Amino acid sequence: MDRLRMALIGGGGAGFIGKVHATAATLDRQAELVAGALSSNPEKAKSAAIPFGIAPERAYESYDALLESESRRDQHDRADFVSIATPNHTHFEIASAALRAGFHVVCDKPMTTTLKDAQELVELAESSDRVFALTHNYSGYPLMRQAREMVAAGEIGDVIAVRVSYAQGWMHGVDPTATPSRGAWKSDPEKNGPGGSLGDVGTHAFHLASFVSGLEPRTLLSQMNSYSHHHQLDDYGHAVIRYDNDATGLVTWSQVTHGRLNDLSIEVDGTRAALSWQQESPNQLFVRSLGKPTQIYERNPNAGYSSPAAIAACRLPGGHPEAFFEAFANVYRDAFADMRRVNAGQPTPLEPKLYPTVHDGMQGVRFLTRCLESHQQDSRWQTW
Amino acid sequence: MDRLRMALIGGGGAGFIGKVHATAATLDRQAELVAGALSSNPEKAKSAAIPFGIAPERAYESYDALLESESRRDQHDRADFVSIATPNHTHFEIASAALRAGFHVVCDKPMTTTLKDAQELVELAESSDRVFALTHNYSGYPLMRQAREMVAAGEIGDVIAVRVSYAQGWMHGVDPTATPSRGAWKSDPEKNGPGGSLGDVGTHAFHLASFVSGLEPRTLLSQMNSYSHHHQLDDYGHAVIRYDNDATGLVTWSQVTHGRLNDLSIEVDGTRAALSWQQESPNQLFVRSLGKPTQIYERNPNAGYSSPAAIAACRLPGGHPEAFFEAFANVYRDAFADMRRVNAGQPTPLEPKLYPTVHDGMQGVRFLTRCLESHQQDSRWQTW
Amino acid sequence: MDRLRMALIGGGGAGFIGKVHATAATLDRQAELVAGALSSNPEKAKSAAIPFGIAPERAYESYDALLESESRRDQHDRADFVSIATPNHTHFEIASAALRAGFHVVCDKPMTTTLKDAQELVELAESSDRVFALTHNYSGYPLMRQAREMVAAGEIGDVIAVRVSYAQGWMHGVDPTATPSRGAWKSDPEKNGPGGSLGDVGTHAFHLASFVSGLEPRTLLSQMNSYSHHHQLDDYGHAVIRYDNDATGLVTWSQVTHGRLNDLSIEVDGTRAALSWQQESPNQLFVRSLGKPTQIYERNPNAGYSSPAAIAACRLPGGHPEAFFEAFANVYRDAFADMRRVNAGQPTPLEPKLYPTVHDGMQGVRFLTRCLESHQQDSRWQTW
Amino acid sequence: MDRLRMALIGGGGAGFIGKVHATAATLDRQAELVAGALSSNPEKAKSAAIPFGIAPERAYESYDALLESESRRDQHDRADFVSIATPNHTHFEIASAALRAGFHVVCDKPMTTTLKDAQELVELAESSDRVFALTHNYSGYPLMRQAREMVAAGEIGDVIAVRVSYAQGWMHGVDPTATPSRGAWKSDPEKNGPGGSLGDVGTHAFHLASFVSGLEPRTLLSQMNSYSHHHQLDDYGHAVIRYDNDATGLVTWSQVTHGRLNDLSIEVDGTRAALSWQQESPNQLFVRSLGKPTQIYERNPNAGYSSPAAIAACRLPGGHPEAFFEAFANVYRDAFADMRRVNAGQPTPLEPKLYPTVHDGMQGVRFLTRCLESHQQDSRWQTW
Repeated sequence: MDRLRMALIGGGGAGFIGKVHATAATLDRQAELVAGALSSNPEKAKSAAIPFGIAPERAYESYDALLESESRRDQHDRADFVSIATPNHTHFEIASAALRAGFHVVCDKPMTTTLKDAQELVELAESSDRVFALTHNYSGYPLMRQAREMVAAGEIGDVIAVRVSYAQGWMHGVDPTATPSRGAWKSDPEKNGPGGSLGDVGTHAFHLASFVSGLEPRTLLSQMNSYSHHHQLDDYGHAVIRYDNDATGLVTWSQVTHGRLNDLSIEVDGTRAALSWQQESPNQLFVRSLGKPTQIYERNPNAGYSSPAAIAACRLPGGHPEAFFEAFANVYRDAFADMRRVNAGQPTPLEPKLYPTVHDGMQGVRFLTRCLESHQQDSRWQTW
Repeated sequence: MDRLRMALIGGGGAGFIGKVHATAATLDRQAELVAGALSSNPEKAKSAAIPFGIAPERAYESYDALLESESRRDQHDRADFVSIATPNHTHFEIASAALRAGFHVVCDKPMTTTLKDAQELVELAESSDRVFALTHNYSGYPLMRQAREMVAAGEIGDVIAVRVSYAQGWMHGVDPTATPSRGAWKSDPEKNGPGGSLGDVGTHAFHLASFVSGLEPRTLLSQMNSYSHHHQLDDYGHAVIRYDNDATGLVTWSQVTHGRLNDLSIEVDGTRAALSWQQESPNQLFVRSLGKPTQIYERNPNAGYSSPAAIAACRLPGGHPEAFFEAFANVYRDAFADMRRVNAGQPTPLEPKLYPTVHDGMQGVRFLTRCLESHQQDSRWQTW
Repeated sequence: MDRLRMALIGGGGAGFIGKVHATAATLDRQAELVAGALSSNPEKAKSAAIPFGIAPERAYESYDALLESESRRDQHDRADFVSIATPNHTHFEIASAALRAGFHVVCDKPMTTTLKDAQELVELAESSDRVFALTHNYSGYPLMRQAREMVAAGEIGDVIAVRVSYAQGWMHGVDPTATPSRGAWKSDPEKNGPGGSLGDVGTHAFHLASFVSGLEPRTLLSQMNSYSHHHQLDDYGHAVIRYDNDATGLVTWSQVTHGRLNDLSIEVDGTRAALSWQQESPNQLFVRSLGKPTQIYERNPNAGYSSPAAIAACRLPGGHPEAFFEAFANVYRDAFADMRRVNAGQPTPLEPKLYPTVHDGMQGVRFLTRCLESHQQDSRWQTW
Repeated sequence: MDRLRMALIGGGGAGFIGKVHATAATLDRQAELVAGALSSNPEKAKSAAIPFGIAPERAYESYDALLESESRRDQHDRADFVSIATPNHTHFEIASAALRAGFHVVCDKPMTTTLKDAQELVELAESSDRVFALTHNYSGYPLMRQAREMVAAGEIGDVIAVRVSYAQGWMHGVDPTATPSRGAWKSDPEKNGPGGSLGDVGTHAFHLASFVSGLEPRTLLSQMNSYSHHHQLDDYGHAVIRYDNDATGLVTWSQVTHGRLNDLSIEVDGTRAALSWQQESPNQLFVRSLGKPTQIYERNPNAGYSSPAAIAACRLPGGHPEAFFEAFANVYRDAFADMRRVNAGQPTPLEPKLYPTVHDGMQGVRFLTRCLESHQQDSRWQTW
C-alpha cells in the first residue's frame, strides 16, 4: 500500500503533541511525514523539522508557504494531508486555508475558538470533498469503541446517566512567564480562546460522553472557577446536561487536582447495565449489572465478547497492553481509509464515522460556548 | 467499665440496620442491648426481640411503652440510651420523646423530614443535657478522620474542590408492592420524606464532604431525576455547591447505577495536595501531590503518618482490615464517651465533635431541603 | 439464645490477638467473656483482665487455676470453652489440660511445636467429646468459603495448581531485646518452636490452600532463609508441593518484605477456570476463564451467584464491607454451633467442618515439620 | 538522522511477533523495513511481505537468499540489521549466518535451544564487531529501568528476595493439530526446543529478575509439569534460585492459568524497601517501605523521582500511557545507538548495556537448561 504523505503544521515547540501526531500517523507505516511548518517562528520552524526527519527543502517557514509550495508539487509527491497542531486561535484560519488548497485535514481540538468559526468551517468542509478529522483521540481507544457499540446495540438498555471527568494537576506548577513552554499560550485568552481547561480537557470529556452514549444535549448549565494563580481562565468546572432522551449528563474538568496526570474517566448508566472506564488503565472496561458479578472486558481481539470496532482497533493480543499512541493512531487510520477513498474517487461512508469529524468539532465548540454562557448567567440552563 | 444499657427502637424488619446498631454498639463490650421496641407492629415488635437476645419483659410493643417503662426502672438498670432505627418520618417524634424522657439518643439519618422539625430538635437537644448522636457512620472510618485532620492541619493547603458520590444500583430490582421489605417505605413520600435517594444516600455524601473539608455551603443548585419505575421520588441527582471559602462542591447520588453496591467515594482537592477515598476499600487513603509519587496511607495505628484521631479509631494493626461495623461502632464509641461524662455529671467537650451531632443532622436536612427547592426552581442557586 | 461462656487464656500482653478473640467470639452476642488467665505473669494476668470487663474474681493468676476454679463452678455458670492465645510452646499443654477438664477449646495456631504433640492432641480430642477449633481465621472469610464450594462443586474443573503467599514486613523493625512485646517470643525457638515465619504465617497460608483446594500433599520440598538481624529462625521461604492429584502447590512466606502489612493471597488454577483472592481486599473474589471477561464476585448475601456457605458467613449486604473480625468470628460461630449440639447431647455433623479442627491443626504442624526436614536435607522432597 | 535499514526474517505467519518487530523498530522513525524473508515457505515468504510494505524485489524466499542478496547491495542501500522472528530451533543458524555476513542482529528469545549453541553464538558475536540484541522486551519498560537503577543505587538496600511470575492461559484453548498457527511449533520439541512454557515465558521472567536485581544465580532447583492436553512439554513450573549474594529467587511460569493474558509481574525485596510491578499495568511501580505510605511511581519523564534511564525510555508525559510497543521499541532504540556507533567506526560503551545482549541470551538458555536438568534429577539443586 502506498503511504500517504503528511505535512505537519505546528508541534515544533516544547510540547509533545507534534511528536504524537508524527508517531501516531506513521505507526502502521501507512503514512510518511514529508513536510512541515513546525512553528510560527520561521527559524524555529526550519530547525525543529530536523529531528522529525523532514527534508530541509520541505521544512517551511510558515503554514502558508507550506500550503502554497506543496500545492505546486507533482500530485504523486505532494502532501496528501496536513495535521494542525497549533494554538487554538489559529486552527480556523489554517484549516480553512488547507481545505481550500485541497488538502485533507487532521486538526487538534477545540476546533475553533468561536461557534461562528466552527459553523463556517463545517460549511467549508461540507462543500469541499476533503476529509476533515479532529483528534479527539480518546475515542480511538478500542474499549471506547466497544462501549459505543454496546450502547448502540442496547446491551445496557436505555442510557439514563453519563458521568465523565477529566482531571489533571499540572497547572499548580506552571508559571507561564517563567517557562514559555507548555501552558504559556493556554493561559492567554487571545491564543487559547475563552475556555481554559474547559477547552483543553473539558471538550475531550464532552466528546467522549457523546461518542459512547450517542446522546445530544437538550440543555445544560455550568459553574466554573479559576483556582491557580497563573491566569484568569477557568481551570475547574462542572456542567450538568439534560440529554435529548432525558438522561442526565455530568462533565467535570480540572487542571488543578494535585497529582492527577491525565485522569479521564467515564461512567455510563443504563437501565440494564452500567459501564465504566479510565484512560490511564485503558485496556479494561468494567461492565456491571445488578445481581451479577462485575465483568472486566479486556482489550482483546481474540475474545468472543469483543465487538467488531473494538477488534478492528487492536494491534496486539490481549494482555499486551496498548495505549495512547495506538488510540491516537486509530483516529488517523480511520481517517486514512476515507482519504484513500477520496483520493481514488470513491464515495466515503456516511456519518456517523468512528473518527471525529467537523461536526463533532462544532459540537465541542458549542459545548464550550454554552458552558461559558451559562456560567456568565449565574448557571442558568442554556438551550443547546 | 460498666456497660451502658441500650434500647433499640425499630430495626426488627427485613432491613439490616437494626442488627447493625446492635452489633456496632456492643462491639467493644462497652454497651449491652437490654430493651427494644423493634417494630410499629406490636406483635412483631415482641417476636423480633428474641433473636436480638432481649429479655421478653423488656421487649415492648411500642416506642412510647418502652420510654415509659424504662423511665420507671431503677437508675442502675434502666436503659441509658435509645437507638432509633425507624422510618424517617418518625425520627422527630421518637427522638423528641426520648430526649424529654431523659434518654441519650442515637438516631438514623436523615434526622427529620422537614427543616422545621430539625430546627426544633436542635433546640430541644440543646436545652436538654442529653447526648444526641446521628449515625452518619461513614465518618467513623479511621481514614476519614485522618483526612479530616490532614485538611484541618493544612496539609493539603486550602481546599478548592470537593467531589463526593454515593452510587447504588438496587432500585432497579425493587418492586415495593411485591416485596414489602427494604425500599417499601423508602418509596413512600409519607414515610420517607420528600427526598428519595437524596435523603437516603445523598445526605450521607453531603455529611462526609462537610466532615472532611470543614466547609459550609454558601449557595447550591441541584438537578435530580427519577429513573426507576417504582416511585416518584428522586433516585438520581447532582448538587453543585459554592462553599463559604469559594471552593466548589459536587454531590452525586444514585440508587439506579447498575451493579454498584454501596459505592461512596470522596475526593478533596487542595492547593498543596489532593485526597481520595472509597468506602468499599476503606483501609486505603490516596494522597497525591504534583510531581511526587502517589502515596497510599493505610489504616495503620502503628504507622508514623497516622493522625491521632485515625489511630484512636483503629482496633487492629494495619493489613488486618477493618470495615463497616467498626466505623459504625466508632460513632457509638465516641458518643459513649460523652454519655459517660454526662452520666457522671462531668462537662462534655465542646463542638466540633468527631461523632455527628444534632447540628450535623440539621445541616443534612438543610442540604436536602435546599436541593429540593433548587430542583423545583429550575436548578436556581439557593442561599444556604 | 443463651450465651456461651468464654474463658480466655493468654492475650493480655502487648499483642492484639487477645482482643481479637474477645471481640470475635462476642460479635454476634452468642458468647460472653466471663473468665481469664491473660498472662503467665500472675500479677499481669489479673490487671490485664480489667479492660476486658472480666470480673476480678474470675481473673485468674494462671491457666491451671482457671481450669480448676471454673471446673468447680456450677454448670450453668462455669465457662463453656477456653480460648488459648498464648505463645506456641504452651498450646499443647494448655489445650490438653482444658480438654481433660471438660472444656471446649479454641486454640491459636500453630497447634503445637512438634508433630508428636500434635498427634497426641488429635488422639486426646478424638477420645473426648469436646469441640476443638483452631483459629486459621482466614478460612472464615465468606469468599474463601465461596471458593471452597466452587472448587468442590467442580466449577473450576480439576485443580492443577495452587499458589498461596503470605507476606509481611514488620520484622525489619523489630528488635526483641529492645521491645519485649510482639515478636519477642516469636524469635525465641524455645517458645515459638522451630519454625519462625513458617509457623507464624506459613501455616496459615498452607491451611488456606488446603481449605480451598481440598487437596492433600503427597510430597513437598522447601528452601528457607533468615534475613532479618533479630533471630536465627526462618523469616522467608518457599515450599513446593506435589499434591495427591498431581497438582502443583507453592507456598511462599515472608516477614521481611518491606511495607507489606498482612498480604495473604491465593490463586487456584483449574482446568476450567481460575480463582484469585487477597486478604487485604477480602470482599472480592476474581474468577477468570479463557476467553471470558474476568468476573468479580462480591461478598454479597443477596447475589444469585453466592454459594450457601458464603451467604451463611455474611452479616451485611454487599458493598458494606466486612473484614478481619467477622472472618474470625465465623470460626467461632461455626464452633459454637457444635458446642451447643454437644452441650445439648446432640451429635455433631461429621467432618469436613467449615471451622478448622484438630486434624487441620495436625496438618499444619506436619507442613511445618516437613518443610524444616526438607530444608535441612538440601531441599529434598519429603513424603507427606 | 538517516534511517537504519531493517530486514525481517520470519514473522509472516499467524502470530503477531513479526508485526511487533516492524512496528517497534520503526516507531521513532529511526529505521525502515526494507527487506524480508518472512516464512520458511518460499511462496508465503513473498506474499506475506506485501502488507509489510516491503518492495517485491526485496521479499526473499529464504533467509539465506536474503543474506546473500542484501550483502551484495551497495553499502548505502543494503540492510543494516536483521531481525529474527522465527521458531526457536532456527535462531542459532540464522543469527550465526547473519553475523558472519556482516549484519547486526536483533533476535527473539530463547536465543538458542541448547547451551552449547548459545556459547558458540557468544563467541561468534564477540569475535565480530556486530551488535547483537535479544528481544527480552519487558526490560524495555521505563519503570523496569527505573527499578534497575533504584536497585543499583542501593535505594532498596541489599536485595534479599526476588519473585517473578509469568502467567498466561491460552494453552487451554489451543489444539495445534486443528489450528496450525500460534502454538503449533511451540508444542513441537523439535522446533521449540526442550523447554516449553519455560522457554516461551519462563526465560522472559528470569531475564527480568536478573535485569532488575543485577544478581546471578549460584544454584537453582526446579519442578515443572504439563497440564494441557496438547503436548508433552512443560506448561507450568517453578524454579527456586539461590543467588550469589544469598538472596532467594523464585520464578513461576504458566501457560495454563485460566483467564490470564500476559500476566508478568515482579517483586524485589530489599533490606530497605521493596518494589513491585505488573506488565499489564506498566505505567506504575510500587515502592514500599516499613512504616511509610506505599508510593506509586508513575512512568513520568517530568517527575523529579524518575531516574535517568526511565526518563530516556519515555516518549510521552505521565498519564498518557505507554505500553508494549514502546517497551519493545526501547530495546531497538538502544541497539540502534550501538549500531550507529559501529557503523560510524566508533567504539560502543561496555557492558552492562540496557538492551539484552548475547550474554543475556546465554544466561537465558543456561536458566532453561539448568531447570530442565534439575527437574529430571528430582528437583536437585544445580550449580549455575
